[in-house]
Amino acid sequence: MTAVDFGAFVDDLASVSGTAILPFFRTAIAAADKSQAGAPFDPVTEADRAGEAAMRQMIRRTFPSHGIIGEEYGDERTEAEFVWVLDPIDGTKAFISGLPMWGTLIGLLRNGDPCFGMMHQPFTRERFTGDGGSATWRGQSGQRELRTRPCDSLDKAILSCTSPRMFRGEKLEAFERVERETRLARFGCDCYAYCMLAAGLMDLVIETDLKPYDIVALVPIIEGAGGVVTTWTGEPAAKGGSIVAAGDKRLHEKALELLNR
Amino acid sequence: MTAVDFGAFVDDLASVSGTAILPFFRTAIAAADKSQAGAPFDPVTEADRAGEAAMRQMIRRTFPSHGIIGEEYGDERTEAEFVWVLDPIDGTKAFISGLPMWGTLIGLLRNGDPCFGMMHQPFTRERFTGDGGSATWRGQSGQRELRTRPCDSLDKAILSCTSPRMFRGEKLEAFERVERETRLARFGCDCYAYCMLAAGLMDLVIETDLKPYDIVALVPIIEGAGGVVTTWTGEPAAKGGSIVAAGDKRLHEKALELLNR
Repeated sequence: MTAVDFGAFVDDLASVSGTAILPFFRTAIAAADKSQAGAPFDPVTEADRAGEAAMRQMIRRTFPSHGIIGEEYGDERTEAEFVWVLDPIDGTKAFISGLPMWGTLIGLLRNGDPCFGMMHQPFTRERFTGDGGSATWRGQSGQRELRTRPCDSLDKAILSCTSPRMFRGEKLEAFERVERETRLARFGCDCYAYCMLAAGLMDLVIETDLKPYDIVALVPIIEGAGGVVTTWTGEPAAKGGSIVAAGDKRLHEKALELLNR
Repeated sequence: MTAVDFGAFVDDLASVSGTAILPFFRTAIAAADKSQAGAPFDPVTEADRAGEAAMRQMIRRTFPSHGIIGEEYGDERTEAEFVWVLDPIDGTKAFISGLPMWGTLIGLLRNGDPCFGMMHQPFTRERFTGDGGSATWRGQSGQRELRTRPCDSLDKAILSCTSPRMFRGEKLEAFERVERETRLARFGCDCYAYCMLAAGLMDLVIETDLKPYDIVALVPIIEGAGGVVTTWTGEPAAKGGSIVAAGDKRLHEKALELLNR
């Protein structure tokens, strides 16, 4: 089965999850707090569960041999050749705040490597997809190829992360070393930032404490658009952790050097 | 002329400015830097100028006696009974980063007081309007009344500001005193945050160094939805400066107290 075949199936997954999630957006829904007492606020919503349940059901029916890793309902058959990695609402804090900066992340691992990914934003009706070789944006005004832009130095770069409050201690110092050198820092974007990097509108995304389901779907989009994404130590990004994505590999090298100084 | 009449005219203003601005969104456009050397990055785009020029032309033709205050082209007839206050792209940093968190702000002062306002987001196709007595959201899925939500304590509140980097010195300390007490802080929203407050999805927005054109249009939306917006010292917000908006006046009082402690 080729990436093209998966593309059509992922479109269907996005449609069913969007239909499940969107009615909850901007309505008064109870946000359960699944974090420990004293830990940072981490809401989870009925929408999250409904979106993942809808996608899991469709995957099980269509590809019963495939594995699934999901934020809400855990792992199954992770030793399979193909494993789906699902985050129905990446950016639950944006979601509960009414901001369309969240997205549904649908990733596919083949033998452990990300081979296809989509970020779906059902409110803005945008779909960002990639297979590592190319990447595409589709929206209400049509579709176009995603390409990162050249940017060889930090002082020309737009940097983003979900919140500077995600860093602590040495990681905060490392992030701020990079931030100080950049032209502009934008906060609050969650998965949307990686897609804007793929679109050549941002240059650098630096985050920490990501789970595999926060990043697997984005790797084939970023790489398909010509970008680079690794951990802060240059390892593959698919296992999550501390992540740095850049549209230009020269910038990626400079960011890694400063992060690890 | 009633607010209803102005509502139809403002819809026309939003349509012409949206038509002027949207083609520039997410395209490679030169962003001139109008800030002083060493000052924070403050891009201004062709889109900004095109949007404001289109609105000014329509206002001059329809209401030649009205005044205009605009971000790009300065002030005219500010002593008039009715003065339009225009910010074609509030959130230019979001705009150049490809994020749909910017908006076109169209405000109307009557004898110096904000009497009507719109925030238009042409990419998401949303229009938030208010006249101080009521406020409305219109989007692709219909329209509904905007109402702030009750929130009587900081530890239940979602706080927002464009960036924590907008504060320095004592203002940063004051902002952080409030932030530490809140349930959640979201950054990067520009005018969108005030609209989410009006929609009952956020509780508190605290910012500084706002110009009149950053806030005049938002005052009738916030107040029309049941919220409160003033300076940090409790003065009317229409002249800009350091601003605190809350959906619940009890929360507004608590925030003012902490900001001025």
